[in-house]
Amino acid sequence: MELETRAVAVNEKGLIGIVRYKLSADEDEIILRTIEAGICGTDKDLAMGNLPQLKLPPGQDYLIIGHECKAEVYKAPPDSSFKEGDIVVPMVRRGCGICRLCKLGMPEYCESGEFKELGIIGVNGCFSEFFKDELSALIKVPKGVEDVAVLAEPLSGLEKAMDQILSFQRGRIPWRCDDGSMNCRKVLIIGTGPIAFLFAMLAKSNGFNNIYISNIRELRKDEIILVNTLDLKFYNSKDGYLQLYKEIGPFDLVFDTTGLPSVAAEVLQYMNYNSVLLLYGFPRKDDTGILRPKIMNEIVYKNLGIIGSVTGPKWGFEAALNHLASWKSQYPTVLDIFLKTKISFDEIPDYLKRPKFNEIKVIIDFNK
Amino acid sequence: MELETRAVAVNEKGLIGIVRYKLSADEDEIILRTIEAGICGTDKDLAMGNLPQLKLPPGQDYLIIGHECKAEVYKAPPDSSFKEGDIVVPMVRRGCGICRLCKLGMPEYCESGEFKELGIIGVNGCFSEFFKDELSALIKVPKGVEDVAVLAEPLSGLEKAMDQILSFQRGRIPWRCDDGSMNCRKVLIIGTGPIAFLFAMLAKSNGFNNIYISNIRELRKDEIILVNTLDLKFYNSKDGYLQLYKEIGPFDLVFDTTGLPSVAAEVLQYMNYNSVLLLYGFPRKDDTGILRPKIMNEIVYKNLGIIGSVTGPKWGFEAALNHLASWKSQYPTVLDIFLKTKISFDEIPDYLKRPKFNEIKVIIDFNK
Amino acid sequence: MELETRAVAVNEKGLIGIVRYKLSADEDEIILRTIEAGICGTDKDLAMGNLPQLKLPPGQDYLIIGHECKAEVYKAPPDSSFKEGDIVVPMVRRGCGICRLCKLGMPEYCESGEFKELGIIGVNGCFSEFFKDELSALIKVPKGVEDVAVLAEPLSGLEKAMDQILSFQRGRIPWRCDDGSMNCRKVLIIGTGPIAFLFAMLAKSNGFNNIYISNIRELRKDEIILVNTLDLKFYNSKDGYLQLYKEIGPFDLVFDTTGLPSVAAEVLQYMNYNSVLLLYGFPRKDDTGILRPKIMNEIVYKNLGIIGSVTGPKWGFEAALNHLASWKSQYPTVLDIFLKTKISFDEIPDYLKRPKFNEIKVIIDFNK
Amino acid sequence: MELETRAVAVNEKGLIGIVRYKLSADEDEIILRTIEAGICGTDKDLAMGNLPQLKLPPGQDYLIIGHECKAEVYKAPPDSSFKEGDIVVPMVRRGCGICRLCKLGMPEYCESGEFKELGIIGVNGCFSEFFKDELSALIKVPKGVEDVAVLAEPLSGLEKAMDQILSFQRGRIPWRCDDGSMNCRKVLIIGTGPIAFLFAMLAKSNGFNNIYISNIRELRKDEIILVNTLDLKFYNSKDGYLQLYKEIGPFDLVFDTTGLPSVAAEVLQYMNYNSVLLLYGFPRKDDTGILRPKIMNEIVYKNLGIIGSVTGPKWGFEAALNHLASWKSQYPTVLDIFLKTKISFDEIPDYLKRPKFNEIKVIIDFNK
Repeated sequence: MELETRAVAVNEKGLIGIVRYKLSADEDEIILRTIEAGICGTDKDLAMGNLPQLKLPPGQDYLIIGHECKAEVYKAPPDSSFKEGDIVVPMVRRGCGICRLCKLGMPEYCESGEFKELGIIGVNGCFSEFFKDELSALIKVPKGVEDVAVLAEPLSGLEKAMDQILSFQRGRIPWRCDDGSMNCRKVLIIGTGPIAFLFAMLAKSNGFNNIYISNIRELRKDEIILVNTLDLKFYNSKDGYLQLYKEIGPFDLVFDTTGLPSVAAEVLQYMNYNSVLLLYGFPRKDDTGILRPKIMNEIVYKNLGIIGSVTGPKWGFEAALNHLASWKSQYPTVLDIFLKTKISFDEIPDYLKRPKFNEIKVIIDFNK
Repeated sequence: MELETRAVAVNEKGLIGIVRYKLSADEDEIILRTIEAGICGTDKDLAMGNLPQLKLPPGQDYLIIGHECKAEVYKAPPDSSFKEGDIVVPMVRRGCGICRLCKLGMPEYCESGEFKELGIIGVNGCFSEFFKDELSALIKVPKGVEDVAVLAEPLSGLEKAMDQILSFQRGRIPWRCDDGSMNCRKVLIIGTGPIAFLFAMLAKSNGFNNIYISNIRELRKDEIILVNTLDLKFYNSKDGYLQLYKEIGPFDLVFDTTGLPSVAAEVLQYMNYNSVLLLYGFPRKDDTGILRPKIMNEIVYKNLGIIGSVTGPKWGFEAALNHLASWKSQYPTVLDIFLKTKISFDEIPDYLKRPKFNEIKVIIDFNK
Repeated sequence: MELETRAVAVNEKGLIGIVRYKLSADEDEIILRTIEAGICGTDKDLAMGNLPQLKLPPGQDYLIIGHECKAEVYKAPPDSSFKEGDIVVPMVRRGCGICRLCKLGMPEYCESGEFKELGIIGVNGCFSEFFKDELSALIKVPKGVEDVAVLAEPLSGLEKAMDQILSFQRGRIPWRCDDGSMNCRKVLIIGTGPIAFLFAMLAKSNGFNNIYISNIRELRKDEIILVNTLDLKFYNSKDGYLQLYKEIGPFDLVFDTTGLPSVAAEVLQYMNYNSVLLLYGFPRKDDTGILRPKIMNEIVYKNLGIIGSVTGPKWGFEAALNHLASWKSQYPTVLDIFLKTKISFDEIPDYLKRPKFNEIKVIIDFNK
Repeated sequence: MELETRAVAVNEKGLIGIVRYKLSADEDEIILRTIEAGICGTDKDLAMGNLPQLKLPPGQDYLIIGHECKAEVYKAPPDSSFKEGDIVVPMVRRGCGICRLCKLGMPEYCESGEFKELGIIGVNGCFSEFFKDELSALIKVPKGVEDVAVLAEPLSGLEKAMDQILSFQRGRIPWRCDDGSMNCRKVLIIGTGPIAFLFAMLAKSNGFNNIYISNIRELRKDEIILVNTLDLKFYNSKDGYLQLYKEIGPFDLVFDTTGLPSVAAEVLQYMNYNSVLLLYGFPRKDDTGILRPKIMNEIVYKNLGIIGSVTGPKWGFEAALNHLASWKSQYPTVLDIFLKTKISFDEIPDYLKRPKFNEIKVIIDFNK
């Protein structure tokens, strides 16, 4: 089968624009029709020519971007477990085929660094009307979650992050409180982007109830609705976190979405004994954090754990779809706000050039 | 405050019937109005005078039964975290107050055996129009899950069971398959009662896809719908499990709801290397399983794990409510079938006397 | 290089006797000279023609037995990490090369069942003056442990068993006592063979102090010394375990070396909440255990864990050598008793025919 | 009983010197006679008036220091598990009695910060000819380890650190290599003090074989012997770690004993995917580490874990005694070098004033 299709492409210098190309597939290959895709900071970095990790697919002089995808099976291989019309989301990280962890099906912990990533490193992504992919990288979306499945990808990496947090703590202390709940534990989330709010929901689904979310600016209208609906507390951190620490005491779990060294160095002073700082963000501006002896003392003396975590495993996508199904019932308003800004395929280049979004999330609607 | 209310009571000899009594509460106590309650096998055992664990509350000559509850806060203590109209589910197991695990908030692993259980051991239950309970035993039901929350209790114990399975395996082997999924693992569920189907959904939410459910009789109509909706496979085990083993190979996870020794002794022969048999059922008839040297050999030679698990922890209720919210989106038909048989309060005694239900689940609707 | 050597061989019918054969090795192969070897029950089973697992090496009409080995490198491949004179112990279990766990270096959890075992399944063993082996199966013995290294193999499997016990418990409860010790936990060991005493030492090294060891006969003189030196308590179980249970209360950890179904079925009645029964033995006589509903109830109601465990991983050999080094300092008398009965190569066939040993352990001294 | 005894005391300003005082004990109290004690950096900090954590015991105007102790029971309470002549080592960290972890017997993870520490925070230590202590804080030294037991305390904290490392990794990846060993993993130890060498031995006992130890100066004679005996590799880090990274590739486990922020910030650049940096040292000079975006990127992108760990649990002392027993057999030379510098009680003040020791370890011999 051969199809003519349009896609958004970049190269090392940044956005090329919309390209047309021919997609041809053998009988045993799958063709997917993109339904929705999310734009994330990485896409904007790619469009600006600012992502050193970028790799063009072998023999190609551009990369089609897009890694937060929801697609429909347009042509299924005859004897596969997929059939036309199935809704799927593709994984982002693809195993290197060399290291023992990738061979085990754990590319999220690839040891060689030779992994690929959909729409980022060596594999064309889904800002394309149609695309092809490996069968083993596709997760079927269960009925009833299809409308929100475009959020599975950004959530999948958070599932891995939370798993590392809980597993690390389980291995050393009983972290729950005397009443069996997590009510005595305080969570601080740094940032108010979509990742921050998705993590807040994930924390709630894991029993955390005292959740603070912070930004150095005041909240916008939609963000206020999210904070209220999710029963979070907002903290304006333009003067740092000392004031929050004085008010509520030390933090048990800090989740950072900014990647800023200065922020990490500051919050490490306000952590509780046996607490965890999860680093998830990549810094997007130059910034410096000063590690002083006092901070090193705190890390040791308080048994702190600092964990970096990146990308989502296959089980993370599965777990994400289950959590999204749960949040559809529990926080429909929240998912509505996440999904309400829908742009058309033709608008992508324009949006990629905007330095920042005021919307919680921008979704490309390929049917628009 | 004082209220006159009606309740279903038992003593050591079995069902007494509907009793009327005065419920009085101090200002700092909470009064709950039951909205829905589930009837479970334990209730029928109690009504038949067949549950040796039964303990009457101190100084009382009867016990009000009922432990699968959904209730509304009718009167809240002034400065509590509860307010009138909140929907709650109460935990069943209550800590002994003596052993280190109960002090830690882990009564689900009580070591002293001196724990209490709502509507079973020493604490009046919720087959009562109104009842009182300890604040620390109540879990607030999130918005959006209220309509299905009566299922939180039976699911809560399965959350603990699944946690033990996954944690045990995580500690010894990478159990996932080479594609990162659980597709290569085969689950066998023994029984087709509500616990069996709830476990099937929980297994699905944990990534298991090859799930066999079995009974020694053919399925009823509703059961067939559940099997189809959940994409399970049914196996008629009236001649034992050898045939299934021959067809699909050894089982990776067996979940037993029958408690029958003969069944456990048989399936242990058909387990895979490094597999787990989770025992969850209490036998309801006399039965004998013969352990032979060959079975002992299998357990050792194949690194089998056999785990018993009982009751649900507080986090299990929280996790259950999240899973129910997820299944509302994914399997609405299934939850409808679970909840469609609603009887009135006055019908409880009659239903308790029936030896078996043909319905998947019988729910008492206190508004009926 | 080519050597003429002598070895003890069996086939499916049992012991053949001492055979002479030519051992030839390429330049990149290693030749080992056996120094000491232990005789274990499996060897006697093989000599009696009673071990169904036996497999002859491909293209050979006999199998050289012996799997508890200590050997010296007689000829090392030029560029290997081994040099002549190094003391080594070989692993027993060899990966199938097919299943994911064997590829990961975890043949102790082989999933295919196609593994091989030194001197048992398809690989010639070390009851041979000289033998060849794969480099990756050899563990170098550190200086200072060489004299006791023949015990590494029987201990290696216990390391894996203990790891499963501790990891399973760590995943669910804080198992230590309120003073941070294991003093409140009671261990029962069933059997008084070498495995039983090695496990007792391992339990001591893991902090257990209340250790009961049992047999259906009175202890022999050497066993009494071991019990006293290790500060164990002996219990005569000829009338079962009820009396012990009445005296000391329920058991927290039971380690079985007999494999007898009747024993397992009995002892399951006397276990503590959240306790573990580790099955390690293979039954050597016909026996039956009756599983009754009451026992199934106990397993569920008390959150029991029953774990089967077989063979030793590479890390188990390493850990075993470390423990043996530790016990040399702490219990020299015990290791002396383990190692004092040394027979010559020529005596092996005679000893293999004896139905039972009165000695704690029989060691073949190849220098004798 | 009442005894006159001598001890080394400090207050907030630093060393007071040798004091005489009366020790009186009730019948149910234990009196210990110190046999050996180690001097550690903390003692020198206390003597310099440089340890802000210092707390005087209630109602006392000085603190007797000393926390690495080996003592003999001089007077035992009648019905205790101790008898006169028993050799014991006392734990350092004592529970706060308030927080849930201390109540559980886990003061090593005390959450309140209100813990005490022998010879440091509110509890008199063992640089005293005789002293009293709580029975629950004393660990009996097994026979055969008595001569090296003064090293149990410094090792006990490393046991906890290693446990956190291995448990964290076990929860997320199979960390062993394809041959089942740890041979593919590279360990870097920063520092060459006693803690560095004890950690090297502990790493060896846990199967690590590629161990690099580093300092910014060349090694002294004894250190060279230790490096050779333990088969370590020495790296001179006066120009940083880039050269080592270029030679051997990224590090899988880095263990820092310096606490220097500049070192931590540097080495984080050279870590492997999924590796762990364990921070154990307290900085003893002013120093600054610059966290740059690139380092934050590495932490996230490589799933790094950074873990702080302090003090030793009771099980850590037990494990330490077992490891010391093992090392007595394996590395007698090493323990000899650790223990060869013995000074008398009267020399303590003089040694406390020395800014640095050239000896690996200085031991006070109370019989001298």
